[in-house]
Amino acid sequence: MSSLPINPPPRLLMGPGPINADPRVLRAMSAQLVGQYDPAMTSYMNETMALYREVFRTANEQTLLIDGTSRAGIEAAIVSLVAPGDRVLVPIFGRFGHLLREIAERAGAEVHVIEREWGTVFTEAEIERAIVATKPALLAVVHGDTSTTVAQPLEGLGALCEKHGVLFYTDVTASLAGNAFAADELGLDAVTAGLQKCLGGPSGSAPATFSPRAVEVIESRKSIEAGIASSADEIAASTDRRIRSNYFDLAMIFDYWGAKRLNHHTEATSMLYGARECARLLVEEGLANAVERHRLHGTAMLAGVGGLGLTVFGDLEHRMNNVVAVEIPAAVNGDAVRGELLTDFGIEIGTSFGPLHGKVWRIGTMGYNARKDAVLTTLAALEQVLRRHGAPVVGGGGVGAAYDVYQDAGAA
Amino acid sequence: MSSLPINPPPRLLMGPGPINADPRVLRAMSAQLVGQYDPAMTSYMNETMALYREVFRTANEQTLLIDGTSRAGIEAAIVSLVAPGDRVLVPIFGRFGHLLREIAERAGAEVHVIEREWGTVFTEAEIERAIVATKPALLAVVHGDTSTTVAQPLEGLGALCEKHGVLFYTDVTASLAGNAFAADELGLDAVTAGLQKCLGGPSGSAPATFSPRAVEVIESRKSIEAGIASSADEIAASTDRRIRSNYFDLAMIFDYWGAKRLNHHTEATSMLYGARECARLLVEEGLANAVERHRLHGTAMLAGVGGLGLTVFGDLEHRMNNVVAVEIPAAVNGDAVRGELLTDFGIEIGTSFGPLHGKVWRIGTMGYNARKDAVLTTLAALEQVLRRHGAPVVGGGGVGAAYDVYQDAGAA
Repeated sequence: MSSLPINPPPRLLMGPGPINADPRVLRAMSAQLVGQYDPAMTSYMNETMALYREVFRTANEQTLLIDGTSRAGIEAAIVSLVAPGDRVLVPIFGRFGHLLREIAERAGAEVHVIEREWGTVFTEAEIERAIVATKPALLAVVHGDTSTTVAQPLEGLGALCEKHGVLFYTDVTASLAGNAFAADELGLDAVTAGLQKCLGGPSGSAPATFSPRAVEVIESRKSIEAGIASSADEIAASTDRRIRSNYFDLAMIFDYWGAKRLNHHTEATSMLYGARECARLLVEEGLANAVERHRLHGTAMLAGVGGLGLTVFGDLEHRMNNVVAVEIPAAVNGDAVRGELLTDFGIEIGTSFGPLHGKVWRIGTMGYNARKDAVLTTLAALEQVLRRHGAPVVGGGGVGAAYDVYQDAGAA
Repeated sequence: MSSLPINPPPRLLMGPGPINADPRVLRAMSAQLVGQYDPAMTSYMNETMALYREVFRTANEQTLLIDGTSRAGIEAAIVSLVAPGDRVLVPIFGRFGHLLREIAERAGAEVHVIEREWGTVFTEAEIERAIVATKPALLAVVHGDTSTTVAQPLEGLGALCEKHGVLFYTDVTASLAGNAFAADELGLDAVTAGLQKCLGGPSGSAPATFSPRAVEVIESRKSIEAGIASSADEIAASTDRRIRSNYFDLAMIFDYWGAKRLNHHTEATSMLYGARECARLLVEEGLANAVERHRLHGTAMLAGVGGLGLTVFGDLEHRMNNVVAVEIPAAVNGDAVRGELLTDFGIEIGTSFGPLHGKVWRIGTMGYNARKDAVLTTLAALEQVLRRHGAPVVGGGGVGAAYDVYQDAGAA
């Protein structure tokens, strides 16, 4: 077969992720490889750990990358923390809560869930009641669920978990760097993320951090590596609570990233270069500044879609800064509008899943694309496409409302 | 903390992998992202499937990438094909046989192994006796085990598996593109690989292919996704043989790469760009030409280390073209020699694992580095370092013997 060199069309990715990678990240990823035990490589690994401690705001020694997409990080955390039969509590308020449940079930856990309508969040009291009722070993909750655009407040849950002797895990793939977050202050034992949203990188590497308490649980499930154990009996001895995955065995992954440097996988070097650069960009900007940038451009986009006359979906009080869900006007076909935006303007906005499929678009302002020109261009194009599809629209209302936000912020 | 931009030292990577990436692969990976359902992206995915059908020499529809390092591919194959209690037969002749055993054990399989001394391979009769004795559902065997440099002949095993109703799986991470291989001719049901050896890319993406018979087994273990099922009972119904991992659930991954385009993970776009370019390079060169290139430069390296007066380890009849194991002379410290080669000449050669640790170096001639200048430079530098460490060495003997090989081949 004949195929052409990679040369993707230029797109402005304003959906719920992936978004355009920061060009600095792509440049870092184009660097040549070094060996996995080269002093340059192990230094890069150590620096990456230190950088992500800043990004997660944690002192956890075990702060590293899982080689895979965001859900690789989720599965590594759950399969390493949870043994078959362990109880796990998952508050579900969107698609990714379902995913946490499913991964925990496949790990053999006894999973208990509480559910809320998509677009809303739980109160601390609701979560405490469920903890008391189910006595879980692990509370696993998504921070921001991109499927609904809202974020579960995590404040107070750490103290609850401490009080009830529960490990506290959250996935911040959708929220990290776009919304205030501090792992240690929140009392978290495990946090996982991905690069393809507010971190401005490609999917394929999952930064994660684990508290000393989580590390203790994981290390207690350590098994003897088959190539090292002296007999099959010795291996079989520990099977009961043995971590069910080799690839996601965090005890082994810690030994690879740590002083022992025991070979596990061959680190995905180019993805590490990229993940490291994502963190450097954030640390240079300052985490608080990055969150403020996402708040500003997210507010401008929110005002803009309102200014066009569109209705916003979900609990605005708990909306993430970096993505807004917009109800698709009755007059138009949502996918046709998205298609025309992509084909004629090179701009991508997102659809949604489950109960929201076909009902809302999701528009992101994330990472490299949390920028004024990206916001204004998207609103201008959306107005034109809506107009051509016969939707009622306020001419200039979107861009105008966004300009007002920037002017109020002194950013116009 | 302050950290500098990625700027790795220039290295010539002549170990057992990773090796230097082909610059074309790095350029492909530096391309900007597109959305995961962008027509450009789904075309790239389809082209990648078609390209890897050529690389694996298969007609299998289900030929795709697993997002992770090589062992992610291995775990996806095993955990999706093997249900708890299923019998798996693993012939072990090096480190990676132990890995297959361990992954199958963690998947809950009843694993039977046969073992041979590292550096040797099994006869077809030995494998048939074990199949008859253990009646496995799956035969899982590494093709080339980099830890020992030898490759298990796979010819005949497909017919054996067919005859005894066994699924036939091999991992070709170390051997693919450097040694003759044809998945369909060999009667394979599952094959996994990685980019970081003869394919000339970075670690982090695992090409894999699955026969219709394997797909049938995998689809029979399909479970209802938690976010879609109507009740917990419906999910629980299928738990017995349910695939134990979400991330490695090939049934879901097939639906993401296939016509349904059901969202599973967010494809690691930059790694896909790289994996696609690795395959394009091979298809352009021609698979047979690539194997011949690895044979030529591997032969030159083999002759060269012999010409220096060093002793080669392992069964030469079954040696892979792309890596040679060399006994460390008694007079020298193996790690000190490797360190000096790296620090003073910028050249990396490999150490080894398990029973071979400290006894042999492993020198690769793989992918982008299966080149005459890489071979000659490595031999010239190795001679100088050995000399400075007081090892007996034939002056000019390494480079001379390699030149002779090139001259005989008309390549000097």
